[in-house]
Amino acid sequence: MSHPARRDALRALLPAAGLDALLVTDLIDVRHLTGFTGSNAAAVIAADRGDDLLCTDGRYRVQAAEQCPDLEVLVDRPSAPAAAARVPAGLTLGYDSATLTVDGLAAVRDAVPGRRLRRAPGLAGRLRAVKDAGEVERIAAACALADTALRALLDDGGLRPGRTEADVALDLDDRMRRLGADGPAFDTILAAGPHSAVPHHRPTGTELRRGDLVKIDFGAALDGYHSDTTRTFCLGPAVDWQRELHALVDAAAAAGRAALVPGASVTAVDAAARDVITAAGHGERFPHGLGHGVGLAVHEPPWLGTTATGRIDAGNVVTVEPGVYLDGRGGVRIEDTLHVVAGGPAVPLTGLPRELIEI
Amino acid sequence: MSHPARRDALRALLPAAGLDALLVTDLIDVRHLTGFTGSNAAAVIAADRGDDLLCTDGRYRVQAAEQCPDLEVLVDRPSAPAAAARVPAGLTLGYDSATLTVDGLAAVRDAVPGRRLRRAPGLAGRLRAVKDAGEVERIAAACALADTALRALLDDGGLRPGRTEADVALDLDDRMRRLGADGPAFDTILAAGPHSAVPHHRPTGTELRRGDLVKIDFGAALDGYHSDTTRTFCLGPAVDWQRELHALVDAAAAAGRAALVPGASVTAVDAAARDVITAAGHGERFPHGLGHGVGLAVHEPPWLGTTATGRIDAGNVVTVEPGVYLDGRGGVRIEDTLHVVAGGPAVPLTGLPRELIEI
Repeated sequence: MSHPARRDALRALLPAAGLDALLVTDLIDVRHLTGFTGSNAAAVIAADRGDDLLCTDGRYRVQAAEQCPDLEVLVDRPSAPAAAARVPAGLTLGYDSATLTVDGLAAVRDAVPGRRLRRAPGLAGRLRAVKDAGEVERIAAACALADTALRALLDDGGLRPGRTEADVALDLDDRMRRLGADGPAFDTILAAGPHSAVPHHRPTGTELRRGDLVKIDFGAALDGYHSDTTRTFCLGPAVDWQRELHALVDAAAAAGRAALVPGASVTAVDAAARDVITAAGHGERFPHGLGHGVGLAVHEPPWLGTTATGRIDAGNVVTVEPGVYLDGRGGVRIEDTLHVVAGGPAVPLTGLPRELIEI
Repeated sequence: MSHPARRDALRALLPAAGLDALLVTDLIDVRHLTGFTGSNAAAVIAADRGDDLLCTDGRYRVQAAEQCPDLEVLVDRPSAPAAAARVPAGLTLGYDSATLTVDGLAAVRDAVPGRRLRRAPGLAGRLRAVKDAGEVERIAAACALADTALRALLDDGGLRPGRTEADVALDLDDRMRRLGADGPAFDTILAAGPHSAVPHHRPTGTELRRGDLVKIDFGAALDGYHSDTTRTFCLGPAVDWQRELHALVDAAAAAGRAALVPGASVTAVDAAARDVITAAGHGERFPHGLGHGVGLAVHEPPWLGTTATGRIDAGNVVTVEPGVYLDGRGGVRIEDTLHVVAGGPAVPLTGLPRELIEI
């Protein structure tokens, strides 16, 4: 979908939100709606297309003109108040209260004295949750690249006792970059032995040892989009508790994936996986949500969790990533990124095998 | 300075701000004050040390206990409302209106009905602007690592016609990582020929050509801290306009560095460099501030610019980075990261030569 078409889709949401225009301040929303990738910008999307504009500062004058040939570009700063000030008087202007700061709102208010401002949390972001074909293609490409990098690392014997967590993480990141990634999608988590029981462990100088569970949570950033995958390996033959833990999480992940269909409530998808873990007596050891949307942001709506709200739509791209973490012993997480489609099970965009690999 | 000592320093600022406690929601502030590095947290620093606490979610339970052995850790989410709810009734609680979102504040209000809340924008961040010896050491280490990487790239002939911008940027990033960096401090800017006139250009598949100006703006992330350096090279002998442009920016940078002393107003430091460029008739072609603080964030206070406020203090670590950009032809930026010290000129932590290198 072209950027103007996305703006039209957002424009169509304005009347129901009681808005004449929306001030878009989240930079990822700005990128989604305009194609602009700079680090400072705000946009206005108005009921009257002629009032649409992008505001950025002088560092990005040339870039904004190149990336947004179809949009009026205003060079001024700070961007949000400057953009708001261009909205015609008498209109009701929405703002994203979920990302605009308290002081940011105060500055906008000062710029449009007497104008009507209205909270519109996540209105532009909502559009991002349903991906168009081009976006799914880009996410799939990032997933395939990440798969290739991890496969090559395994094939080359890169995951072996004696290397440190940090070494293996760097090796994996390098492989992704050499395959064309802009970089890792986020700080790669590589956690061995007892560290695998820390859900978001940062790689250290700890050496991998025979018998360790090794949890690798990683992704590629490519062309603005992201992938997100976790696999947990065993260095050498797994012992019973490791095998059972892996099988439990694998079953929970399968249940989560099976529940990921259009119309399902996000809590129901979470529960499908969580119930498997709770039934095994490990409910307390799964201390995070089941998953999240993936796109221009590596973490974005929809959120799958016990306190999340909303329903799954065809076109969502989400992770399913249950984990069980046994303090001081080790943990297992298995995560895929999937594309939700109408009339069938969600399609995994990540392609690595899920069975426990003993290295 | 230890984390408890930093919390005491912040505690000492509370009375003058009319606060009994501060809710710290910016994650970099949280890291600075507690050592906690997870992706979700809030902290309370209170007049009564016994009321200090860190709140994070279950993913980080083990990590928070390890990183903050000297602090009460509350595991709950969302963090900010949960932390605020633990502040004793009757106290006036400050919040960082510069980073807390409108909805985030609403959630905090709901969690502490009837409690007094007060804006305290940047109060915790202010402490970060003056670096302690350990922080300066870490930033200097990041700068030295980045220097070494670029020197090695030049020595190995890595900057040459025929390579693409993206290739050279990846090469530089790889070298930083192999030298031990956690990664680049930000997306490396590598801009050749006319692209060098775009202040924040993203590297493309464009091949470097003989005669190009090549602007490289890069940094290393190391142990949580950052470096930031820009150099502009010429591929082959420079022609007159390139040489003159480089000399002008070099003179402006020297003037900016000379003005960077304790007590100087941030606008005066900016003006010292800007006046040199304006006098040469290029004022309009320097469309950004002169510099920014560098630390746990790669861009943080103090800000040097025409509309910034405040004064330079001993202990600040800031960049000086004037640039002049000639649309369609090319641009030059020269940037160093410097440590402001009492009673002398600021000490550059970046050590690359500044003269125009013709490759």
